[in-house]
Amino acid sequence: MQTPIILTGDRPTGKLHIGHYVGSLRQRVLAQQTHRQFVMIADLQALTDNGQDPAKVTGNVLEVMADYLAAGLDPAKTTFCLQSALPALPELTCYYLNLVSVARLERNPTVKAEIQQKGFERSLPAGFLVYPISQAADITAFRATHVPVGEDQLPMLEQANEIVRRFNGLVGQEVLTECQPILSDTGRLPGIDGKAKMSKSLGNTIELGMSEAEIKQAVHAMYTDPNHLKLSDPGQVEGNAVFTYLDAFHPDKALVAEMKAHYRRGGLGDMRCKQVLNDCLQNLLAPMRERRQQAMSERGELLNLLRQGTEQARGVTDSLLGEVKRAMGLNYFG
Amino acid sequence: MQTPIILTGDRPTGKLHIGHYVGSLRQRVLAQQTHRQFVMIADLQALTDNGQDPAKVTGNVLEVMADYLAAGLDPAKTTFCLQSALPALPELTCYYLNLVSVARLERNPTVKAEIQQKGFERSLPAGFLVYPISQAADITAFRATHVPVGEDQLPMLEQANEIVRRFNGLVGQEVLTECQPILSDTGRLPGIDGKAKMSKSLGNTIELGMSEAEIKQAVHAMYTDPNHLKLSDPGQVEGNAVFTYLDAFHPDKALVAEMKAHYRRGGLGDMRCKQVLNDCLQNLLAPMRERRQQAMSERGELLNLLRQGTEQARGVTDSLLGEVKRAMGLNYFG
Repeated sequence: MQTPIILTGDRPTGKLHIGHYVGSLRQRVLAQQTHRQFVMIADLQALTDNGQDPAKVTGNVLEVMADYLAAGLDPAKTTFCLQSALPALPELTCYYLNLVSVARLERNPTVKAEIQQKGFERSLPAGFLVYPISQAADITAFRATHVPVGEDQLPMLEQANEIVRRFNGLVGQEVLTECQPILSDTGRLPGIDGKAKMSKSLGNTIELGMSEAEIKQAVHAMYTDPNHLKLSDPGQVEGNAVFTYLDAFHPDKALVAEMKAHYRRGGLGDMRCKQVLNDCLQNLLAPMRERRQQAMSERGELLNLLRQGTEQARGVTDSLLGEVKRAMGLNYFG
Repeated sequence: MQTPIILTGDRPTGKLHIGHYVGSLRQRVLAQQTHRQFVMIADLQALTDNGQDPAKVTGNVLEVMADYLAAGLDPAKTTFCLQSALPALPELTCYYLNLVSVARLERNPTVKAEIQQKGFERSLPAGFLVYPISQAADITAFRATHVPVGEDQLPMLEQANEIVRRFNGLVGQEVLTECQPILSDTGRLPGIDGKAKMSKSLGNTIELGMSEAEIKQAVHAMYTDPNHLKLSDPGQVEGNAVFTYLDAFHPDKALVAEMKAHYRRGGLGDMRCKQVLNDCLQNLLAPMRERRQQAMSERGELLNLLRQGTEQARGVTDSLLGEVKRAMGLNYFG
C-alpha cells in the first residue's frame, strides 16, 4: 500500500494567527505522526496577487517558519519547503497549461469568487487565472494523496484531479496520482471583532507570537453580545466571539457548556467570560511564544531548516518531473 | 558597448523547408559571423498547440538540428539549445504571469489571429493564451537584444518589452533588457501550389533534405499562370510561383529579369522556366542534402551538439533567472 502523503502550506503574506492554528496547524501537528507530510511556504502563489509588492511576501517567509515551530510542527517529522526554490513546479505548470482550456479556468468557482472578492475584473493578472494549474503542479509534484482544504477549495482539487486523469490518459501511464481532500471539521474562526474572517489587514487577529499583554488586550476588545448591557440581562451566545473562541480553544467542554447556559439566563458578565478565555489563550500561546522567540533568535538555523527540507522536497519533485518528461518523450538527453 | 545577442529558433513540428531557408536560415548563417546567436528548438512552445500529440514534437527535434547544419549553421559560431531543457524559462514565465493581465493577453493581435486560424475559440488551451509571456521569458532569459521576426510577430516583441519595463520599474533596477526586431526583408515564400503558406500539412513544401528526384517532381508540379496555355501566349509573372521562387533563389538577377520579360510577351514555356528553377534549387540543395545525411548518420553526435549548446544556454539563462530572483528578494538561500 502507498504511504499517504500530505501536501499543505501557507502563503507567506503575514504572521500566522490562532485562526490558522484551529483551522490547520493543529491538524498538521497530529498528521505528522501518521503521514509523510510536506508543508510548503507558497511564496510563488503569494506573488500571484502581490506581484507589485514582493517584499510583503519575502519578508514573511521566516516569520511563517517560526510560526510552524511555534505551533509544534517538528522538522524531524514534517518536511518544510519553499515553493520558489522548487523549479519542477513551474515546469510542471507549463506542461499542464496546455491541458486546460481558458474557459475551464474561468468556470472555476473558487477562482470566480476570489476574482470578485479581490476586485480584479478586467485587470486580472494571468498568474491569478492560472493558479489552479499551478496548485495542480504542487500537488502532483509531491505525489500528494491527501490535501487538507476548506469546502471552498474543493474545486481546486477537482481541477488537479482532472489534470491527473487527462495527463495519464494522454501518455497511457499512471504517472500522476489523484488526491483526496481532508476536509477541516472546524468552521473558520471569526476575527475578534466578530467579523467572518480573521485577517491581518483588518487588525482583528491574535497572532501566535503575541505578548501576554497583547493577547489580554485583544480578548478585552473582543466582540460579544451588543445587547447584553446589564450583568443580569440574558445574553446571546450565537455570534458572540468570546463563546466561539471558548468552543474552539477551551479544553473543558463541560465548563464552557455551563458558562453558556449561565450567560443565556443572565447573571454572567462579559468580563468574567473574557477572563476565562484569556487564561485559556495565555496557556495555549505561552509555550508557542517561547518556541517562536527561540526560533527567531536563531534565524540562520531557521533558514537552514527550510533549506534542508527544500533540498529533500527538490529530490521528490524533480523525480516526478523526470517521470512526466519521460512519459512525454522529452528525455532527449537520457 | 553591449555585444548584440540574437535569439531565434523554430518549433520542431516538422522538417525545415526552403521557405524557412529564405525566411530565416539564410539570415542566421550570415548573423552568426557578427552576432552572439542562440538558436532554440522550441519544443515547449510547440506543445502549446500540440499538447495532445507530444510525439509530433519530440520526433522532430533531431530533424530540425540536422536541418540547421544542412543550412550552414556552424556549432562553433551558433549556440543550439533545447527549450524544454532550460528550467529557467518556465520559472521566468511564472513570475511574468503576474505582471500581465488576462485582458492584455486577449488583446494581443498575433494571439487573436492565431486563435482564429487554429479554430480554438472556447477550447483555447491556457498555454496558448499565455504563450506571449513564455516568449518574453525566452527573449529576456538570453538577454537578447535582437529578435528576427515577421511583421505579424511584432506584437509579441512589444509584449516582451512591456514586461521588461514593468519588471525593471517594479524592482527599480535594469535587470531585464529590451529587444529590437530584425524584420525580414523577404516576404513569405508561397507553397509550390501558389498558396500563401508553405506548410507540411498542405504537402506544398520543398524540404531541405529532399532527394534530387523529389525536388524535380515538386518543381514540375509547381503552380504557374493557369491562363498561359500556348507557348506563344503572353504569361503572367505575378502570383506565378516559379517566378517567385526564381526571384528568391536564383543568383543571376539579370537572367531572371530577362526571363520575366520574355514570359510576359510570350514565347517562353513553363517547362523551360521550371528547368532553370530546378537547376538552381538542385545546386542550392545538393550540399545541404549531403550535410543533412551526414548529420543524420551520426545521431549521437548530433544530440551531443544539442546537449553541449543547451548546457551553455543553461548557464546564461540560469544566471539571468538568478538576477531576477535576487531583484525580487527571492534569494533566501544566498
